Amino acid sequence: MTTLPLALTQGDPSGIGPELTLKAYAARKARALPPFFALADPAQLARTAAALGLEIALREVAPEGVAAVFDTALPVVPLGLSVQGAPGAPEPADAAATIFSIERAVELVAEGKARALVTNPIAKNVLYAAGFAHPGHTEFLAALAERRFGRPFRPVMMLYSEELAVVPATIHVALAEVPRLLTRELLVETGVIVAADLSARFGLASPRVAFAGLNPHAGESGAMGREEIDVIAPAIVELRARGIDASGPHPADTMFHAAARARYDVAICPTHDQALIPIKTLAFDRGVNVTLGLPFVRTSPDHGTAFDIAGKGIAEATSLIEAIRLADRMTAR
Amino acid sequence: MTTLPLALTQGDPSGIGPELTLKAYAARKARALPPFFALADPAQLARTAAALGLEIALREVAPEGVAAVFDTALPVVPLGLSVQGAPGAPEPADAAATIFSIERAVELVAEGKARALVTNPIAKNVLYAAGFAHPGHTEFLAALAERRFGRPFRPVMMLYSEELAVVPATIHVALAEVPRLLTRELLVETGVIVAADLSARFGLASPRVAFAGLNPHAGESGAMGREEIDVIAPAIVELRARGIDASGPHPADTMFHAAARARYDVAICPTHDQALIPIKTLAFDRGVNVTLGLPFVRTSPDHGTAFDIAGKGIAEATSLIEAIRLADRMTAR
Repeated sequence: MTTLPLALTQGDPSGIGPELTLKAYAARKARALPPFFALADPAQLARTAAALGLEIALREVAPEGVAAVFDTALPVVPLGLSVQGAPGAPEPADAAATIFSIERAVELVAEGKARALVTNPIAKNVLYAAGFAHPGHTEFLAALAERRFGRPFRPVMMLYSEELAVVPATIHVALAEVPRLLTRELLVETGVIVAADLSARFGLASPRVAFAGLNPHAGESGAMGREEIDVIAPAIVELRARGIDASGPHPADTMFHAAARARYDVAICPTHDQALIPIKTLAFDRGVNVTLGLPFVRTSPDHGTAFDIAGKGIAEATSLIEAIRLADRMTAR
Repeated sequence: MTTLPLALTQGDPSGIGPELTLKAYAARKARALPPFFALADPAQLARTAAALGLEIALREVAPEGVAAVFDTALPVVPLGLSVQGAPGAPEPADAAATIFSIERAVELVAEGKARALVTNPIAKNVLYAAGFAHPGHTEFLAALAERRFGRPFRPVMMLYSEELAVVPATIHVALAEVPRLLTRELLVETGVIVAADLSARFGLASPRVAFAGLNPHAGESGAMGREEIDVIAPAIVELRARGIDASGPHPADTMFHAAARARYDVAICPTHDQALIPIKTLAFDRGVNVTLGLPFVRTSPDHGTAFDIAGKGIAEATSLIEAIRLADRMTAR
């Protein structure tokens, strides 16, 4: 299994994805990266390398040939679609290639020709203009998984760094909606998926899943909100009954210093900011977005297309490199 | 002014306050602490020192005599009330001394005999049982200030560390209440007080006040909640019209890494956890609670009475020491 390469999707070709892919390849020795290939338009990658003055050899290969060439050239599995957008100027006509790269990556993983997906950033509004009907990258991957594997999957977003792993139980919703959306069912389902994937993908026999409270000081026994009593604690009880090492609800503000972090493997937080503030405070450039709950491993850098700096040569590949390393680690056993 | 001592209140005598006061005094040379005195029962401090094996000389003095003895003995300004509670076993009858220590400290600062207050932790439920009618420590100080200075004050809680200073715009309320409580008036009033005190007490000519959004990604132009558009941005406009360097609303999750923190002096956050998560992640033991908006400086360690470890000799005085240092700094000019 570990001899299979990782599939890097193209992402929006006018964003920083092509630059990051080239820079990650350039760092392969320094960071001991495993073989990977770009699912992209070779000509566009070559143009990007030339424009940025990156002396990186590219080689068009089939997935089976990646390992043999990885040492000396960035393996590119051509999409068969050429892209036109200039850096920073996304081109609606390129949306087809962006989408096809993701579809092909899922296919190759499903066919056993790649080990995992590492996805470069896409711009949803560019894809929407081209008729893309999914709320986002993650939901699209879930739909592709359902199409390929014949059953529905519930994707769960985890943000991972060496210091801390967090899962926001609610994500891109108004804060005022959180108390209504935060149900026992949601927390139990999230906890089950997180525990199963931490066990399967991180080699943890019994992952320690810590739940944050929603309210200040986790509500102080109901003095400041009842969600801990009515929703979160019952979810923890149910998870424990299922054999999962769930704890909490913990006051969110005292969960993230070093000594507290040593007590759990992942923190599940009711709100987006409760989860993302600590990881971005501790590991701003090194956070990796991981999708749990899918029938394959998918990681991605924790940033967007950054059209404003595309083509300038100043994009940092740290998060993509960490995403490659994490996908490797999650599929190494 | 800087020759005046700082007044340390007793706090709950059955909590870790007495131990912390003794340990802070023991660290006076290593941490270059300015003269301070304990407003306490000398006999109880002596018992605490003996029980913990701390060889610290105590000297009963009037505030005027503190500077002369500080080098060789912990100056104690007696309350004239003896306390009885054992460590970890709070005694309702001691509430009178706990309260009187705070009242005396305010008096001494108002009379020009002390420079600032550094308050040891109290336990509200112990004081409530004795008839204490204020929601908490800070509100009591505001009431004492009003009584002494003849006009109302609006206290604002700031959490301070070398890395980061934060102000939660709402504090001990259920999260579901925050959208209703978060008004333009609240944010403007908070911003005015914070900017004035950062200017007066921290020597910043034009403090940079950064506001966090309430919603994920600060609402993404209204896509996830409208509080940024309807409430926070108008408050920032009003503050800027008043000459205050206010910015935002910024996405809370990307405000707290080192490069982002360099762009402001204080962050005002809509929720308790948005403010307290990053500072407790970065500086768990070193955070200091500062009350702005009062006619005097008050700092306090960012923890409670810790009855569970009182008398065991294991309490860390780091936060109290930082509170002393900050009170010194805030009154040094």
